[in-house]
Amino acid sequence: MVTVAIDAMGGDFGPKPIISGLLEAFKEREFKAILVGNKNEILSLLPQGIKDKVSIVEANDVISMSDSATDAFKRKNSSIYKAVELVRNKEAQAVVSAGHSGATMSLATLRIGRLKNVSRPAIATLMPTKTGKSLVLDVGANVDCKPEHLFQFGVMGEAYAQTLLKVKEPRVGLLSNGEEASKGNELTKEAYQLLQHLPSFIGNVEGNNIFDASTDVIVCDGFVGNLVLKTSEGVADTISHFIKGYIRKSPIAIAGSLLMKKVFRKLKKEIDYAEYGGAPLIGINGCAIIGHGKSNSKAVKNAIFQAIDYVNAGVNIKIESRLEEISAL
Amino acid sequence: MVTVAIDAMGGDFGPKPIISGLLEAFKEREFKAILVGNKNEILSLLPQGIKDKVSIVEANDVISMSDSATDAFKRKNSSIYKAVELVRNKEAQAVVSAGHSGATMSLATLRIGRLKNVSRPAIATLMPTKTGKSLVLDVGANVDCKPEHLFQFGVMGEAYAQTLLKVKEPRVGLLSNGEEASKGNELTKEAYQLLQHLPSFIGNVEGNNIFDASTDVIVCDGFVGNLVLKTSEGVADTISHFIKGYIRKSPIAIAGSLLMKKVFRKLKKEIDYAEYGGAPLIGINGCAIIGHGKSNSKAVKNAIFQAIDYVNAGVNIKIESRLEEISAL
Repeated sequence: MVTVAIDAMGGDFGPKPIISGLLEAFKEREFKAILVGNKNEILSLLPQGIKDKVSIVEANDVISMSDSATDAFKRKNSSIYKAVELVRNKEAQAVVSAGHSGATMSLATLRIGRLKNVSRPAIATLMPTKTGKSLVLDVGANVDCKPEHLFQFGVMGEAYAQTLLKVKEPRVGLLSNGEEASKGNELTKEAYQLLQHLPSFIGNVEGNNIFDASTDVIVCDGFVGNLVLKTSEGVADTISHFIKGYIRKSPIAIAGSLLMKKVFRKLKKEIDYAEYGGAPLIGINGCAIIGHGKSNSKAVKNAIFQAIDYVNAGVNIKIESRLEEISAL
Repeated sequence: MVTVAIDAMGGDFGPKPIISGLLEAFKEREFKAILVGNKNEILSLLPQGIKDKVSIVEANDVISMSDSATDAFKRKNSSIYKAVELVRNKEAQAVVSAGHSGATMSLATLRIGRLKNVSRPAIATLMPTKTGKSLVLDVGANVDCKPEHLFQFGVMGEAYAQTLLKVKEPRVGLLSNGEEASKGNELTKEAYQLLQHLPSFIGNVEGNNIFDASTDVIVCDGFVGNLVLKTSEGVADTISHFIKGYIRKSPIAIAGSLLMKKVFRKLKKEIDYAEYGGAPLIGINGCAIIGHGKSNSKAVKNAIFQAIDYVNAGVNIKIESRLEEISAL
């Protein structure tokens, strides 16, 4: 059974949504959890019946969003530090945190370590497409990348899509400013050459291809990936703002919107980050799921499920063997 | 009166929407036009009454979307080449083309020339925000940029916002992966230092700030700008795809959507590129408006209006004097 270490103190709303999410997760799946944080606070939120599936590791420091990620290494009493150590020491197979993502990333990369032949772990995120999901990586771990990093992201994304998204032959695309091979900046043009060694590589793809179900894995550096993510959120937000504003001004439209309630609910579900849980840091020798700071209990539940699935799917073995295979060529 | 040179042959649908757009434009504004392209084809589409406001320049070659931009300089008989030459020779003050955008950009930059102290002209595009419009530049002219280019984009965007968007004190932001000054990639971190000399600079902004009315001018390199643009189109497209799909499945939702028809029409107008016309190439010693290849007559009409407004607003003088001012510091 998978054991998940959970940073109980990380996230903008403290331990409450995290423990609620954990309790919801227990209703649906079998796993063990280690909650890391302030013992008294955790115990006050934990019902009696659940205590055999959960152990608590005391940690009295919390890295807050305004702290620097580099401080994380010194603050060995922080909940995220101790949660990561549990994976390092093989007491847990995965760590979930909705806290300081930079700290989680740095600690997970350096304390748990990288997979063989992986230079830079990447944060991967699922995006809704017209018919399913696509995976975009990196979305923030590495702002400045070398071509070989993008190549490795392609391999890691391919492995994730095969094992977790169950796409037998994932289509891996390189995010660029045009489909033609001649398009791109200095970085992507060189990465294009490397990615051509990957049979699943379909060439350059554009921003709209993230959502049109033409591509399963979209490769980019973390600077670009973060912008794409935030831009998408911004567009969805603004469209919903416009729709709400127009509706308010017309009784007829209000009536219409009531009849369309289900439609809007479905749409919201489709683009709600909480449905996705969190973003895995792919490429470390373990599993770390990075949650949104604003994670509600549903997001925490889904992040825990992501962690369990990640461990069970054997992504890491796949990545190592694939990189081995390719480096042998 | 402003004279606009129009590439009558550029665009995916040939001269028809271009000439329709021109005729629509004449109904609303006073200007002169020079249509460049196949004379017989143009004449067959032009009504009698209009001919005193329009002259025709014969050009029997068309640069198609699949041609290379570098060929554009050799094909002196092409409609876009001749249209650009009209601005170079001061027979027109602006050129509008919905044809090969790379060719238009290169020709306009090199044949018309750059403004003093501008190293790289940039394509700027308007985006809808919750309360108005924001300007993003560069969205495709320069995939690889140096910090000083981004700085100049900031100055050019500021001038555009002041003169054309009538924003007295535009807020200029640098697109980055976080608001803190420490965020960014190598390029933007250096550009940040330079942009601090601009009193209108508000620091780093994120992808969602393009739409939330917090920023008037968003500065980025052309690779990132193109991705942001295409991603936005993709998200809007996918949301409309989801809504349509859900509606189709439910008679109640169909009824609701009929009542909400006006809402959807307004939304469509808000995000329809045709409302914006085209994207100016800012920084050249003249005016070039680059239209979407799929421009319909409304987009062509609005592109012509953009050209007239650009010339009348005196953007170029503003850019030159601002750069002069700053370089003197």
